[in-house]
Amino acid sequence: MDDDRTPFPTDPLRGGLDPQALAAHVRDGMLADDRATRHFGIRVTAVGPGSATVEMAVREHMLNGFGTCHGGVLTALADSAFAFACNSHNTMAVAAGLSMDFLRPARAGDVLAAEAVELSCGSRSGLYDVTVRNQHGERIAAFRGRAHRFAGRAAVPLPS
Amino acid sequence: MDDDRTPFPTDPLRGGLDPQALAAHVRDGMLADDRATRHFGIRVTAVGPGSATVEMAVREHMLNGFGTCHGGVLTALADSAFAFACNSHNTMAVAAGLSMDFLRPARAGDVLAAEAVELSCGSRSGLYDVTVRNQHGERIAAFRGRAHRFAGRAAVPLPS
Amino acid sequence: MDDDRTPFPTDPLRGGLDPQALAAHVRDGMLADDRATRHFGIRVTAVGPGSATVEMAVREHMLNGFGTCHGGVLTALADSAFAFACNSHNTMAVAAGLSMDFLRPARAGDVLAAEAVELSCGSRSGLYDVTVRNQHGERIAAFRGRAHRFAGRAAVPLPS
Amino acid sequence: MDDDRTPFPTDPLRGGLDPQALAAHVRDGMLADDRATRHFGIRVTAVGPGSATVEMAVREHMLNGFGTCHGGVLTALADSAFAFACNSHNTMAVAAGLSMDFLRPARAGDVLAAEAVELSCGSRSGLYDVTVRNQHGERIAAFRGRAHRFAGRAAVPLPS
Repeated sequence: MDDDRTPFPTDPLRGGLDPQALAAHVRDGMLADDRATRHFGIRVTAVGPGSATVEMAVREHMLNGFGTCHGGVLTALADSAFAFACNSHNTMAVAAGLSMDFLRPARAGDVLAAEAVELSCGSRSGLYDVTVRNQHGERIAAFRGRAHRFAGRAAVPLPS
Repeated sequence: MDDDRTPFPTDPLRGGLDPQALAAHVRDGMLADDRATRHFGIRVTAVGPGSATVEMAVREHMLNGFGTCHGGVLTALADSAFAFACNSHNTMAVAAGLSMDFLRPARAGDVLAAEAVELSCGSRSGLYDVTVRNQHGERIAAFRGRAHRFAGRAAVPLPS
Repeated sequence: MDDDRTPFPTDPLRGGLDPQALAAHVRDGMLADDRATRHFGIRVTAVGPGSATVEMAVREHMLNGFGTCHGGVLTALADSAFAFACNSHNTMAVAAGLSMDFLRPARAGDVLAAEAVELSCGSRSGLYDVTVRNQHGERIAAFRGRAHRFAGRAAVPLPS
Repeated sequence: MDDDRTPFPTDPLRGGLDPQALAAHVRDGMLADDRATRHFGIRVTAVGPGSATVEMAVREHMLNGFGTCHGGVLTALADSAFAFACNSHNTMAVAAGLSMDFLRPARAGDVLAAEAVELSCGSRSGLYDVTVRNQHGERIAAFRGRAHRFAGRAAVPLPS
C-alpha cells in the first residue's frame, strides 16, 4: 500500500525528454552495463513508459535434467522485461519480489518473448505483470514483479 | 490442496535404496543431464529426503545494470535447490510456480548457498522453502516453490 | 506445469448445457451451500466459462485497527470470484494457493467489485487473475489464484 | 531490496518500553480498534518483537460450498497474525502483499492457530512467514506477508 501513489507520477529526472524517449534512454543506459541480460542473449525489442518486451532463444545450455528450459532461466527472461519496464520512468527501481507460474515447458530452439505491463506505479513501489510466450503465441509462464522505487534517484544519468 | 498427501510417501520407485541413498542417486542422475545448473557453476553440496543445498559464486556475467547479481540468476540458484529437493524421493516433480523475495543485494565474488526444505509432500503436489545466504550467513532471498508431482513416474532410472 | 492441458477442455460433466448455462448452474449450486460468501454479503453479479464477477460493500465490522478494510476480507472477496470462475466448467476445483498485492486502501461504505479471468485451464490445474476495484474504478488489489482440478468430479450435481 | 535494513532496528517510538512490553502495548492498541479481528473471533495468544500467534475456531458461517473453511477466512486468520507481528516494533506497517498455500482443508469445529515469525525487517519493508495449524498440529497453510513500513510513524500512541 503506497498512500501517495499517482498513476503517472511527474518526475524531475526526465531531462526534457518525453516519456517514450525517456524509456528508450533508460534502456540504452541500463543495457550498457547489464552483463547478465547480454549473457542470456536477451534482446530488448520494445520499451515504453511502464512497459518493455524482451526476447530470447532457448539454447542447449539452458536446459534442465528433463530436457526443458530451466525455470530459473525463464524467470531471468521475465525479470529482465520487468527491470526495463519498472525503470522506464527513470526513477531507480529494484526488484523487491516476484512470482512465476509455469504453464507450458519451453524447449531448445524455442524463441520466447516476455512482455511487461505496469499495473501500478507509486512513489515507493510498483507492480508489473509479465507474460512469456513462445513462437507459436502460446503462454509459457505468468510472472508478477514487485518493485521498490527510490524517489529522486535516477536509474541512468540524463543526457547533458 | 492435496487430500491424500502423506508426510513421507512410500514409493515403489526406490529400487531397494534407503531414502538418503535414493536422494543421492537422483541427484547424480539429474546432474548428468542438467546443463543449466552446470552452466551457472552451481554445485550440489548436500541432498537428503526432501532437502538439498547448492552453492554458486557470483561472477561478472551475472551482474545487472546496477552492478548487483541479476534477480533471475538468484532465482535460478534457488530453483536448482528446489528441483533437487522435490525430486529426491524419485517421484518426478516439476515446478508449477515459485515466489522470490529479495532481501539484500549480492555482488561479484560473493559465494551464495541455497538450502531447500520440504514443507509438504503429497500425491499430486509439494511445497518447498529455499533460503539463499551469502558467505557471511546473511539472508539474501527467500524462495517458495510449488511442485507438481507425477505419481508412478520416476525422476531418474533406478540402478538395476 | 500440466502437460496435457487444453485451452477449453471438453468435459463430460455438462449435462447437455452450453458453457454459459453450465457456469450459471454451477454458480447456483455453489451458492446454495456457501455460507461464507453469504456471510460477507458477497453477491455474484456475473459468471461465464472461466470468469466471474462478485461485489461486496465494506462494512464497519470489516475494518482493521487502522480504519481500512482488513486485508483478509479483501482476499476473501477476490477468492470468492476465483472460486466461481475456476469451478465454472463443472470440474471440481479447489484453491491450491493465491497471492494478493494491495494497491489502495478500501474504507467503510466503499463498494468493491472483483473480476476473475482465466489465464490457463488444464487437466490438473488452472490459473486465474482477479482484479479488485472500488466504486470509482480504482484498482484496489491484484490477486492471482492457483487451482487444483479434479478431473471427472463434478463441482455440483447436474440437472436430471 | 531495502538497502539500509538492520536486523533489529532501534526505534524512537518505544516510550521507554522494552521490546516485549512494546509488542504487548501495540497489540492492545491495535485490538481496541480492530473490528474485523474481533468479528472473526480471532484471539491473540502471544506477541513478541517480530512475532505473534493468533487462534480462531472454524464456525459454520465460515464454510464454503464444499463444506470446508473458505480460503479467504484462512487468509484473514494468517493476515491478522502478520499484522500484529509486523507492527510489534511500533513502526506503522501495512500489508503490501501476501501469498498463501493451502495444504489441508479445515472443517467446522477445528481450532486453528497461526504463528507469525519475522524473516527480515528493514527501514522500508519487512517479510514475515505465518504457519497455520489445526488442533492436531497438522499444517493447514503456509502464508508469506510483505509489509511496507512507515519510518517515524507509530502504529499506536505511546503511553504518556
